[in-house]
Amino acid sequence: MAGLGSNDKALRARAEAVIPGGMYGHQSVALLPDDYPQYFARAEGARMWDVDGRGYLDFMCAYGPNLFGYGHPEINAAFVRQMETADALTGPTARMVELAEAFVGMVSHADWAMFCKNGTDATSMAMVVARAHTRRKTIVLAKGAYHGSAPWCTPRPAGVTAEDRAHQIFCSYNDIASLEEAVAKAGDDLAAIFAAPFKHDAFIDQSLPDAAYARRARELCDQTGALLVVDDVRAGLRVARDCSWSTVGVKPDLSTWGKCIANGHPISALLGSEIARGAASHVFVTGSYWFQAAPMAAALTTLRLVRETDYLERIERLGARLRTGLHERASAAGFSLRQTGPVTMPLFLFDDDPDMRKGFAWSSAMLQRGIYVHPWHNMFLCAAMTDGDIDETLNAAEGAFKHLKGVAGGLGPVEKLAFLTA
Amino acid sequence: MAGLGSNDKALRARAEAVIPGGMYGHQSVALLPDDYPQYFARAEGARMWDVDGRGYLDFMCAYGPNLFGYGHPEINAAFVRQMETADALTGPTARMVELAEAFVGMVSHADWAMFCKNGTDATSMAMVVARAHTRRKTIVLAKGAYHGSAPWCTPRPAGVTAEDRAHQIFCSYNDIASLEEAVAKAGDDLAAIFAAPFKHDAFIDQSLPDAAYARRARELCDQTGALLVVDDVRAGLRVARDCSWSTVGVKPDLSTWGKCIANGHPISALLGSEIARGAASHVFVTGSYWFQAAPMAAALTTLRLVRETDYLERIERLGARLRTGLHERASAAGFSLRQTGPVTMPLFLFDDDPDMRKGFAWSSAMLQRGIYVHPWHNMFLCAAMTDGDIDETLNAAEGAFKHLKGVAGGLGPVEKLAFLTA
Repeated sequence: MAGLGSNDKALRARAEAVIPGGMYGHQSVALLPDDYPQYFARAEGARMWDVDGRGYLDFMCAYGPNLFGYGHPEINAAFVRQMETADALTGPTARMVELAEAFVGMVSHADWAMFCKNGTDATSMAMVVARAHTRRKTIVLAKGAYHGSAPWCTPRPAGVTAEDRAHQIFCSYNDIASLEEAVAKAGDDLAAIFAAPFKHDAFIDQSLPDAAYARRARELCDQTGALLVVDDVRAGLRVARDCSWSTVGVKPDLSTWGKCIANGHPISALLGSEIARGAASHVFVTGSYWFQAAPMAAALTTLRLVRETDYLERIERLGARLRTGLHERASAAGFSLRQTGPVTMPLFLFDDDPDMRKGFAWSSAMLQRGIYVHPWHNMFLCAAMTDGDIDETLNAAEGAFKHLKGVAGGLGPVEKLAFLTA
Repeated sequence: MAGLGSNDKALRARAEAVIPGGMYGHQSVALLPDDYPQYFARAEGARMWDVDGRGYLDFMCAYGPNLFGYGHPEINAAFVRQMETADALTGPTARMVELAEAFVGMVSHADWAMFCKNGTDATSMAMVVARAHTRRKTIVLAKGAYHGSAPWCTPRPAGVTAEDRAHQIFCSYNDIASLEEAVAKAGDDLAAIFAAPFKHDAFIDQSLPDAAYARRARELCDQTGALLVVDDVRAGLRVARDCSWSTVGVKPDLSTWGKCIANGHPISALLGSEIARGAASHVFVTGSYWFQAAPMAAALTTLRLVRETDYLERIERLGARLRTGLHERASAAGFSLRQTGPVTMPLFLFDDDPDMRKGFAWSSAMLQRGIYVHPWHNMFLCAAMTDGDIDETLNAAEGAFKHLKGVAGGLGPVEKLAFLTA
């Protein structure tokens, strides 16, 4: 099996000197197989090339932002046209109003919009708006759900204080009794129930939302006056052309958006219904680049493509083909692969693989065959993918399962994931 | 005096329906004179045009991001070239390592860099890194200093809990005794002293840093093992080609950067010295767009222009001309104008103007003459400004002072700023 390329190695050595730990955040490959490249040089459509010239069909899609293909000509043209006219100025442009109107027209619960940069900006604003609206403090969240990397929500709490996590009560996703228990525990202080649109925690199987759970969350908010928040930063636009919980018939009061809403250009959003407008107008939230017009122009074009093309049906069909085809090839090689979550945002985990040695070996084998998959984080399909790409992926998978069958008996534990089984 | 244009009015009416309160954050004109336009359509160099076609010489420079001129051809070309090759991907590009090297080479205290999007991301990361490094909680800050709009620091705390502000002790900027008192109060729990590079609070006179105060902050950190943080998000690169406290001979352990480091393209940074590297490598901070390559390419070009041109000496000379010229013209008209802060980031306040009626009337008169000034927030010069622009500004100021002299006796209080005198 090929190792890292020399350009990647050289960049890692330089980074070791000037970036703490060599890399940080979700794009660090520290918890990926050793042969995963850290640095990339080029991308187009559904493909990217690392700094050593190796090309991959990319099932991470930049961890979500790539919805219509890297370097999408129409979206990027809208971006550049706006950037050359007016981008980060002393005030907003008309694009901001147009984009708020576009979201309000598209997302059924939304009566207003506020724009920001990070997904975490939007989730933090949702928390603050809910607290301002209710004049209460407690938020109920599902244990293990990712809502960003601010002190109140980062999954690895080095440097975080107990107070940063005050007024948080946790329930289990899709477990109505635990939700009711958490709400009861909040008593008369419940400000909001936060919900991921589906359970997309890392390292474990994903779960689609149970409609009864979603309806109960809505009821509990209606009964207590708390706000229901759906955090659609990761899943938005890959499940529905509306808030993702529209698929289970439940409207939140607030929803948070980011990642792919401008096909990778930096913008996120908090959308809200009428009830929360007053509170939203009283909080002070801002950022130097939040009023930038170019990402808004890119978002306007992205949302038009969302409305006017069959991108969603297309990636759903490709995702279904991928799921069926992988199941067949895994079974044929004697493996049981659990494929969970929406077909457009799949996660693959092997049965009987608690320390992920099979997952790591298979993912590496896929990488060697030009397919970039992630062994423990949900993946993302994009509308630039084709049936030919799925064929290529399934052929690669056949080879990778065969390879895994040959080496499986001799695999050692994955040391960097030892915490999973500790 | 002309009122708002019809396009601006129409956009405000539409925004009223889809944006809470019509606008939010620092670019809302709610606390500016009524004739200040909310929406802009175009910008180039040091000038911008509102949606009704009126042009302005812009002394806000997008609240800082515009350092080398709007739409700077060389910086934007670097951005677009990178964007078309590789921007937001499944991993970073070599630009990230190059940019970290560029900052480490340029900022004397820095041994490493981490990149993010908002200024608030960088200040929040500084707080978390200091707490992780010291395993203590308390941070000392100057009262009234702006460090961002997250719950721990937003200046208008609707929706913020007491716990969000836990472990914060306030001192008075440039007041050594109050700093020592705050540090003593922190006892053995001091994690960090935060400092703005100079006092640039809104509504009041600015103050340059007292060298003895800065040195004392350094000493107190050395004695206690706390980290010294200079928040250079707003002032960075307009005071020095290094951290702004290099002008008083003091090196922090952490510094935060943003706004103009990519001339308006969205990127911010936390820089740190060796002592904080370990802690920085253990915190989990990230964002969907933090690894974007195009803003990094723009930052690389911006930093090259910072190193290789006389931009700083040029804006310092223009700022000094502006300060002297304004003083002369104000005096000639019988007004006393307090001009504070660095000449590249001036603030103008009238004597005997507690409710800012003179400031509002004069700023409006400047606006009518095509000069966009801010009545209560520090302004920013950019390297696209020329001696001709300063001449134009001084001519406009002469007319505006004359106008003010005529109307001053009849001015009523500024209702929207009533809180200043309440």
